Amino acid sequence: MAAAFSCPVFFPSTFSYNGNRYHGRIKIKINATSSTKVKTLNEIAGAGKGSSSLATSTEINHLSQEQIRQRIPTKKQLVDPYRQGLIIERGVGYRQTVVVRSYEVGPYKTATLESLLNLFQETALNHVWMSGLLSNGFGATHGMVRNNLIWVVSRMQVQVDHYPIWGEVLEIDTWVGASGKNGMRRDWLIRSQATGITYARATSTWVMMNEKTRRLSKMPEEVRDEISPWFIDKRAINEDVPEKIVKLDDNARYVNSDLKPKRSDLDMNHHVNNVKYVRWMLETIPDKFLESHQLSGIVLEYRRECGSSDRVQSLCQPDEDETLTNGVEQSLLKNMVLTPRIMEGNGYLGPLDVKSYGYTHLLQIKGDSKNEEIVRGRTRWRKTLSTLPYSS
Amino acid sequence: MAAAFSCPVFFPSTFSYNGNRYHGRIKIKINATSSTKVKTLNEIAGAGKGSSSLATSTEINHLSQEQIRQRIPTKKQLVDPYRQGLIIERGVGYRQTVVVRSYEVGPYKTATLESLLNLFQETALNHVWMSGLLSNGFGATHGMVRNNLIWVVSRMQVQVDHYPIWGEVLEIDTWVGASGKNGMRRDWLIRSQATGITYARATSTWVMMNEKTRRLSKMPEEVRDEISPWFIDKRAINEDVPEKIVKLDDNARYVNSDLKPKRSDLDMNHHVNNVKYVRWMLETIPDKFLESHQLSGIVLEYRRECGSSDRVQSLCQPDEDETLTNGVEQSLLKNMVLTPRIMEGNGYLGPLDVKSYGYTHLLQIKGDSKNEEIVRGRTRWRKTLSTLPYSS
Repeated sequence: MAAAFSCPVFFPSTFSYNGNRYHGRIKIKINATSSTKVKTLNEIAGAGKGSSSLATSTEINHLSQEQIRQRIPTKKQLVDPYRQGLIIERGVGYRQTVVVRSYEVGPYKTATLESLLNLFQETALNHVWMSGLLSNGFGATHGMVRNNLIWVVSRMQVQVDHYPIWGEVLEIDTWVGASGKNGMRRDWLIRSQATGITYARATSTWVMMNEKTRRLSKMPEEVRDEISPWFIDKRAINEDVPEKIVKLDDNARYVNSDLKPKRSDLDMNHHVNNVKYVRWMLETIPDKFLESHQLSGIVLEYRRECGSSDRVQSLCQPDEDETLTNGVEQSLLKNMVLTPRIMEGNGYLGPLDVKSYGYTHLLQIKGDSKNEEIVRGRTRWRKTLSTLPYSS
Repeated sequence: MAAAFSCPVFFPSTFSYNGNRYHGRIKIKINATSSTKVKTLNEIAGAGKGSSSLATSTEINHLSQEQIRQRIPTKKQLVDPYRQGLIIERGVGYRQTVVVRSYEVGPYKTATLESLLNLFQETALNHVWMSGLLSNGFGATHGMVRNNLIWVVSRMQVQVDHYPIWGEVLEIDTWVGASGKNGMRRDWLIRSQATGITYARATSTWVMMNEKTRRLSKMPEEVRDEISPWFIDKRAINEDVPEKIVKLDDNARYVNSDLKPKRSDLDMNHHVNNVKYVRWMLETIPDKFLESHQLSGIVLEYRRECGSSDRVQSLCQPDEDETLTNGVEQSLLKNMVLTPRIMEGNGYLGPLDVKSYGYTHLLQIKGDSKNEEIVRGRTRWRKTLSTLPYSS
């Protein structure tokens, strides 16, 4: 959950260094008053390893803020000229102007989903940075640090109507809202700076966890007082009831096993970054399909983080073709944007083809006795008219 | 060569789509007047495949500029507010202010080498963009396009004295100069915006190739007239004689075989990006070494590009320990910056330890009868005092 998306939080935070991680499926009870005990792998493995991790963690805490992130403001800033950010929405939202860089685009010269996820993370962190609430480099507020609390992400949903192209200037808005009594929602909106047209929208859900006990926690009054003034009752994605993602099993059509995190996959919290998760998910889809389809939406439900020593299995299952032809098709179009797409994200004039194709995904750690879910996912795709072959 | 580093050129350019690539070791004769014939794989494989690639390539050329990169200026710009760039050096150099983003840092919260390489690419492209010489999205000038010429990179060298941290504001300067009669040098300098201290320097060498014949080409007068006014006789790295990189063979100490490019490794030119090459090189070095050492310098010599269907082998060989203790050590310190390092890049106060460790690298495509060199490399490393364990 948190490690899965260890930064792009309202107050981005980590709760684990060097494999000191929580474990097991977390039942997120955002409206519940009781918290859920979550064991760390270290707790399961025994104290020895845990205490050595603790020593390292303490070492890190001795780093000055200057060494983690430069010049953290102690009070709210309204404008950040270097990051091209400003506070909007009557003082509580954040907008950043961003240019799509050459290395953020894929083979079609459009920003990749990974780049969009990275920009979500970046703008979220800059929002907290601008707020003056940032207590440390990982994004927890002062009140959260006093209570040993960190944010963990439980869900992330992205809809992409149009992929921005290389060199395009974007405005990314991000803001937060309440999610039940103890959770928080963070939303994003990506627009063309030139035309104001919305390209992509995203929403995510976060809960608090005690860094030491690994229990989910209620939001302390102190923390609520800090962050609730920033809450906005506005949604980037209007969702009635979140779609349930079924759990795939070994019968899944496509399976990619023995995925191994590499050094370069680890983010600043020594976790496999959530962007890597998405990559593992998408790479399991056959090239043939990817050549002629473009991702229009993704939902991720985080269950457990993945450490650098885990071996991961990626499963995926296309929706049955029958569902596309027997009237259930409409349900697949739920949340799809049906406005005409003037230009497909790959730069071609696209058809007004609103047909959507769905895949269900599962990343899991293959254990000897049982498997551990890392993240469940749903992706939606639209057909592209012209395609470039992927491989030579 | 070019695909290896297919964008970060003065006039970044590609010469290949969809596996339509050049082949074989290219003997770069920057001062020579004759050009060298380089065959494409398609030429070797026969015309059928080549013609299908050509069709696709033609398709791409029909995309408007607007669809490849937004609003390419037709004349020189002095300031670019969105990219935070400006023309310096009496009108011919380029400076861009950049903030180190959260996803550009690694486990030590310092910018990764990959991020620096990406920023080199980005600033080079923006320099061309600002110059008004950009003819298409791939960076060739108008004169180059008229002559079917593209740039290919033959060499890249980076020295990192200090790795910038997350949130740090940097100024990246880049400029070009002559390299022999027919080549071009592009240099970069990364400085702290706050202190002006130089963090990293880089230099690269480029030659021209005819996109159709795959021959290296002299620089036409027309192109020289376009670009030579931008040449500056200033070097980011003072190098007397470029160090020769020996070619490793199967006896290399560490070998990582069967590396397979993934979809997400392909850049906008459908090539494996050079950043991926560096990743493959560094991943072959044992974790144990990487945990306690920081890369201080890298030299890359590009020989051949790598397509999406190739299986790549990464070899590396540490310098003999003997050389570190028998007086040859000084030669390893060549090009090392010996100024005291106030703070090591990983955030710890480092020792004034100037001892350098070297590795020789080779990426090659393992063939049935013979292997094809992709890139040779040399990396230099310095010891870090405190380290965080990589894996749990």
